[in-house]
Amino acid sequence: MASSVDHAGLKRRQLLAGLGVASAAGLAAAVRAQPGAQPGAWDMTTDVLVVGSGAAGASAAIEASQAGAAVLLIESLPRFGGSSAMSAGVVYAGGGTALQRALGVRDSVEAMSAFIAGMSGPQPPLEKIQLYCEQSPAHFDWLVGQGVRYGEKLATAMSVPLDGESLYFSGAERAWPARELAAPAPRGHVPLGPGMTGGRTLMEALLARVRALGVSMLSGIEARRLVVARDGRILGMEVSMNGERKNIRARRGVVLASGGFIHNREMVRLYAPHLYECSVPWGNIGDQGVGINIGIGAGAAALRMHQGFAIVPLYPPESVLAGIVVNAAAQRFVPEDTYYGVLGDAIAYHQQGRAWLITDRDSHLPPQQDNFPQLAQANTIGDLAEQLGFPRGALQHTVAYYNRNALNGEDPLFHKSPAYLRPLQGPPYRAWNLSVDQAFVPAHTFGGLHTTVDGQVLDGFGEAIPGLYAAGRTAAGLPAAPYIASGLSVGDCTFFGRRAGLAAAGRSAA
Amino acid sequence: MASSVDHAGLKRRQLLAGLGVASAAGLAAAVRAQPGAQPGAWDMTTDVLVVGSGAAGASAAIEASQAGAAVLLIESLPRFGGSSAMSAGVVYAGGGTALQRALGVRDSVEAMSAFIAGMSGPQPPLEKIQLYCEQSPAHFDWLVGQGVRYGEKLATAMSVPLDGESLYFSGAERAWPARELAAPAPRGHVPLGPGMTGGRTLMEALLARVRALGVSMLSGIEARRLVVARDGRILGMEVSMNGERKNIRARRGVVLASGGFIHNREMVRLYAPHLYECSVPWGNIGDQGVGINIGIGAGAAALRMHQGFAIVPLYPPESVLAGIVVNAAAQRFVPEDTYYGVLGDAIAYHQQGRAWLITDRDSHLPPQQDNFPQLAQANTIGDLAEQLGFPRGALQHTVAYYNRNALNGEDPLFHKSPAYLRPLQGPPYRAWNLSVDQAFVPAHTFGGLHTTVDGQVLDGFGEAIPGLYAAGRTAAGLPAAPYIASGLSVGDCTFFGRRAGLAAAGRSAA
Repeated sequence: MASSVDHAGLKRRQLLAGLGVASAAGLAAAVRAQPGAQPGAWDMTTDVLVVGSGAAGASAAIEASQAGAAVLLIESLPRFGGSSAMSAGVVYAGGGTALQRALGVRDSVEAMSAFIAGMSGPQPPLEKIQLYCEQSPAHFDWLVGQGVRYGEKLATAMSVPLDGESLYFSGAERAWPARELAAPAPRGHVPLGPGMTGGRTLMEALLARVRALGVSMLSGIEARRLVVARDGRILGMEVSMNGERKNIRARRGVVLASGGFIHNREMVRLYAPHLYECSVPWGNIGDQGVGINIGIGAGAAALRMHQGFAIVPLYPPESVLAGIVVNAAAQRFVPEDTYYGVLGDAIAYHQQGRAWLITDRDSHLPPQQDNFPQLAQANTIGDLAEQLGFPRGALQHTVAYYNRNALNGEDPLFHKSPAYLRPLQGPPYRAWNLSVDQAFVPAHTFGGLHTTVDGQVLDGFGEAIPGLYAAGRTAAGLPAAPYIASGLSVGDCTFFGRRAGLAAAGRSAA
Repeated sequence: MASSVDHAGLKRRQLLAGLGVASAAGLAAAVRAQPGAQPGAWDMTTDVLVVGSGAAGASAAIEASQAGAAVLLIESLPRFGGSSAMSAGVVYAGGGTALQRALGVRDSVEAMSAFIAGMSGPQPPLEKIQLYCEQSPAHFDWLVGQGVRYGEKLATAMSVPLDGESLYFSGAERAWPARELAAPAPRGHVPLGPGMTGGRTLMEALLARVRALGVSMLSGIEARRLVVARDGRILGMEVSMNGERKNIRARRGVVLASGGFIHNREMVRLYAPHLYECSVPWGNIGDQGVGINIGIGAGAAALRMHQGFAIVPLYPPESVLAGIVVNAAAQRFVPEDTYYGVLGDAIAYHQQGRAWLITDRDSHLPPQQDNFPQLAQANTIGDLAEQLGFPRGALQHTVAYYNRNALNGEDPLFHKSPAYLRPLQGPPYRAWNLSVDQAFVPAHTFGGLHTTVDGQVLDGFGEAIPGLYAAGRTAAGLPAAPYIASGLSVGDCTFFGRRAGLAAAGRSAA
């Protein structure tokens, strides 16, 4: 293979890796729960202790507080908002939300759940999927009720809209095979705001609501371990505050919502090795796995720890989708017009991290794009393949079969949409490196604590650990591999965060 | 797709599933460790308690006993021997074992470790691999020293030898790309014995040695939970004996070696969904994940829980390797002559469980083979593809490219060995279903407790849980996905079982 260094990618990686290391070094060492070691005195007392201030923690705090509980929310970093505030703030919602209806979009709970359940890999979390879909319209109303604003404008492009649109196709709904499973509908709900600031907008609204409800909020507090009674019930948590250990009593429950572990390189290596080489660990630097490990230290089981998203942002521009994506054997392996979380999953998990985009005269990319480096350029497919070191004749063979069918408007292998289907028809041909360590490939973890739909944390035998709850990426929630749509992760954080907060306060959700 | 039911496969599956269910129902409910709940009195006391009597448990018991510890070994089932006794008893060993040298086989530690480390997927457990390879000749001598007998005869076939040979190529060493990573050598060491009884032979020798050393052995004892001191040290274990709860004090340590979880269907669904549809959960019915869950209940981390082997036994006869294996897009995706653990991994984990073998006049199978059902037969590749419902023109295209290169003695995509490489050249063409739910596909889990090379169990923060050890499939050991050679699992059980036993007795291994 021709080698190439993506300097922009490397810089991003070094920057982020540097931040991650600094953060890890700054964390006080958290440790396993100490059995029965009830402290002599509690330094603080609350009803519900929420650990983490992203979308999951904020949503949990809101519901627990509204249910009448005294709530303390702690955050390890100086600022509140977590990875959610860094995100595009997309919430995947459907089944007929107010915004869908206002924009004349037809959708159903059945279509939404068939899409998620059918596309999220083997043995997806069906109970969570079903509940999430059934209550999605009501959950969207709740978000609006918290003060999150949405614009009544539908986007036509497939990427996060930047021009005041609040509803778009954020996933693989229209790509094969999803469109055969369920009627596609746009379900990506984006808060109104300038540019890619949806996450900040979302979190500003939720955190303002948390404050308005009188929730105590403390930043710079590091969770260390759970305090467990002799009968196994969680009593509270030992934390580190300005270097001092303090014990916080949580009379009703503790909600762990401190994110995933993408910035804990050793955890990624051990648990999610397919994400290890991805160029951009994506998330707030607090994503150190502390909440997950604190839960494990109290006897919790953790699920789907190998899973996560690896995003390979092939578009925009959508014109590039007329190109083809191939593996090391020069074979196509996905419909190029699928969601780039599906593409990234296929590359990271199933193609040993390596793939290439082949474009022609009419599908080449703007010179300023730096999401993936150009590797080769040639006047024939054969010359291009030789430069790439592909198996002899393989790329020519793939292109010949693709072109022959594309001429007839067909893609027998992966059913690319007619909108992007045409033969590769003229030089210069170019090859672009989509490999996860060379392209701009943000990655995030999905594995976390085993929970019920109410956020109760379960042990290896499926028994609840009394008083312990988890939500967001600290839990094994709705998002699975492959990641089929933007908004499923933040959507899960808000939806199941709410339920965890309610349950911790002693009230069960509908 | 044409559908077909493999009745033999279904019968096997029902039989084994039935056994699994019966066993699960018969188990007393194990539970999370009860923090600081030290029992008033111990019913039994030992130095080292070993849970499980397969190769890992027996090896641990031998070493602990030889190190001067009083050892109690408990087994949940009526018979000792675990899944190891059901296996072929192959131990993967090399780097110049006595048997390799006696047979004139050249090998090196470097070649062995390069093969394992280079082929075992992303981020393999390098420290365990290195130690295993370095000490492999000495470990083989140890096995011989325990009374395991080997015949000085080298097998030529690729499958478990049945005719007194004790050394064979048990893995993917000679297939591409492994042969480019390291010089291939036969490393599958099979105990001498009639037919496929290597596992029984191995376990008879090890268990005889356990008995001779005076280890107390109790069967029908179910592990329930660990007893943990207030300072976190493991004191012993609560077990169920004839329906009564008893507490066993383990002064020096507890070694969890009770196998994996392939017969716990709910755990497979949650943790290893790619193995869920595999037709034959492979292992002793004690593989219920109890040891893993008991460890988790004491705060242990568990790694690689999604991994395992899925074996698709394509050969014998080796003549079938002149056929090609294709996915749902009619693309080849592996060298057909690789080890069938590599093939099975590719199908189960990377091709959504589905694959087909295409044979011609000269590569068809004996009528009595029932490892995978025949789906279609035709006089042309086109007719065959149509019967299978493959994408139009795709199989023809794959065969044309394959044949053109095979005529020149080349396989540019996957470098199948010349011994099996020739064009598919004459009818009848047949298609066989290799899909994991239709073919005979034994599956076994690899995920388990996070351990050091000395079997010390670690929590989520990488800290050892004092007094707790694990080995065999209860630990995340050497075997990773893909499973690249027979003998790596039982080899790991014996090698790291020994180290865990030694460490539990308070002695560190060399």
